Amino acid sequence: MNIGLDMMGGDFAPLEAVKGVQQYLAESTTANLFLIGNKEQINLLLQEHQVPTDRINVIHADQVIGMHEHPTKALKEKQQSSIAIGFHLLASGKTDAFISAGNTGAMLVGALFSIKAVEGVLRPTISTIIPKEDGGAGILLDVGLNADCKPEQLNQFAVMGSVYAQLILGIDNPRVGLMNVGEEEGKGNLLAQATYPLLKENKQINFIGNIEGRDVLVDKADVMVCEGFTGNIILKLAETLYEISHRRQLKDEYFDRFNFENYGGTPVLGVAKPVIIGHGISGAKAFNNMIKVAEKMIEKDVLGKMKDALQ
Amino acid sequence: MNIGLDMMGGDFAPLEAVKGVQQYLAESTTANLFLIGNKEQINLLLQEHQVPTDRINVIHADQVIGMHEHPTKALKEKQQSSIAIGFHLLASGKTDAFISAGNTGAMLVGALFSIKAVEGVLRPTISTIIPKEDGGAGILLDVGLNADCKPEQLNQFAVMGSVYAQLILGIDNPRVGLMNVGEEEGKGNLLAQATYPLLKENKQINFIGNIEGRDVLVDKADVMVCEGFTGNIILKLAETLYEISHRRQLKDEYFDRFNFENYGGTPVLGVAKPVIIGHGISGAKAFNNMIKVAEKMIEKDVLGKMKDALQ
Repeated sequence: MNIGLDMMGGDFAPLEAVKGVQQYLAESTTANLFLIGNKEQINLLLQEHQVPTDRINVIHADQVIGMHEHPTKALKEKQQSSIAIGFHLLASGKTDAFISAGNTGAMLVGALFSIKAVEGVLRPTISTIIPKEDGGAGILLDVGLNADCKPEQLNQFAVMGSVYAQLILGIDNPRVGLMNVGEEEGKGNLLAQATYPLLKENKQINFIGNIEGRDVLVDKADVMVCEGFTGNIILKLAETLYEISHRRQLKDEYFDRFNFENYGGTPVLGVAKPVIIGHGISGAKAFNNMIKVAEKMIEKDVLGKMKDALQ
Repeated sequence: MNIGLDMMGGDFAPLEAVKGVQQYLAESTTANLFLIGNKEQINLLLQEHQVPTDRINVIHADQVIGMHEHPTKALKEKQQSSIAIGFHLLASGKTDAFISAGNTGAMLVGALFSIKAVEGVLRPTISTIIPKEDGGAGILLDVGLNADCKPEQLNQFAVMGSVYAQLILGIDNPRVGLMNVGEEEGKGNLLAQATYPLLKENKQINFIGNIEGRDVLVDKADVMVCEGFTGNIILKLAETLYEISHRRQLKDEYFDRFNFENYGGTPVLGVAKPVIIGHGISGAKAFNNMIKVAEKMIEKDVLGKMKDALQ
């Protein structure tokens, strides 16, 4: 399999990306890597860090899309950027997955418009891993791609999240919870009220009912479903738990797990090929983890399984 | 001034309510208290704890509304319950505020249907205090009374929250932030997009723009505005921070402040008289704090100021 990696995306690129590649090559013998970016810089760093190059193709990209550029405009105008070339390689089948810690908006636009949606998917979604107090982890989705949703979309997110939880997180028969403001059926805003019966009748998932804010961090549901407005606010609030505990020098094992570098980025679920978006502050470990997630998604045919589950 | 207190509401009533009354009477000389509940039990506890009774009226209530009873049904059928009598005293002007840590739904129904709304208020709201990492505190609203909102309602919540922050929390010119998924105007779901221009044009408030999940716990906005669905999830998630840090024996000053007992309950804002709803697990300190918040709301004419600001 061939995995494409944007070497120019993220605050510490290309150095941390190179170090992540080095870690990955030492730990896995599976994928060949297409490293996309400034060829000279990349080759120099590969040499400096004595990275073995037999499974590496360096693809030159003349341009970089900055973190704060307008996504659609930048993608259109910078055809020679590492992100544009990355999607070109993916769309043409030269690579089987694409990863970047660069401009999130450009990654989303690229994923949605250059890669087809999985058959049957109404709207692709992005998710995040939420560490649970008991040591496990759950998946929360959508976390910002779809700020307004229809019940049918949430129903699909539940299916896609379940497939991901099972195949990538290794959770058997993952419990699906609907984010809500009360436990009983009938609670919530109009969207949650209309979504509940769809989830209840959905035979593809293991629906356990409504979950509340107090359930997010504990072992209750493995797949937590909501629209992207609420999900994004939960995600960004959860991320501050690491920062706050770090600033307060708490050195707590649980709050340390909110360091999102451990989770290897956010896959865009529902597009036909693995696209993984990293945090701007991704370091070597995050890049390594993202490549491993992409590898696993290809190996286990996660997107094919989603398609089957949505038929 | 006369403040009514439901002595039968909450998991540790009436004992903790009596202890809270005792604390209050020792610390403040302002209000007379109407203690509503089982007269015999209350008098016995007052005697046992040697509570001075010169500022106390005990009002007998034959019935109690349980924590899990259906609010509307219970209020209708249990006219002799402490909550029903509490609202009767408030509506008839015998008391100037009413406090209970009992059935939240019944308190909301009572507040909305037996007490008039402040003139000009579209929908009353409930809020919570959010401790900030720097030692301060902000107010988040709505936290669950209005799961679906219109932009005009959020605009009013911003005004009511500002008045409360100024008069009760003592924050001059409180900064209002709109809970959202990005910083720039135009971000967010349809509701947030439509609310932004209203807040921007509102001369009654100090609007600082959108805030994100990462801003909730830090010193950015003093008044954080959202619909009750998102707000309730944030509130309940924040409450678990105390529980988790407690279970993990972190003994951290900041996370300890998420013990909501410190904040004296949730006032219903937008109804014409102070109604304060306590947490089911309210202890003496919470009861004392709730009485003090009620006292302050009466003293500073918070609801009158809201009316003026909404004209």
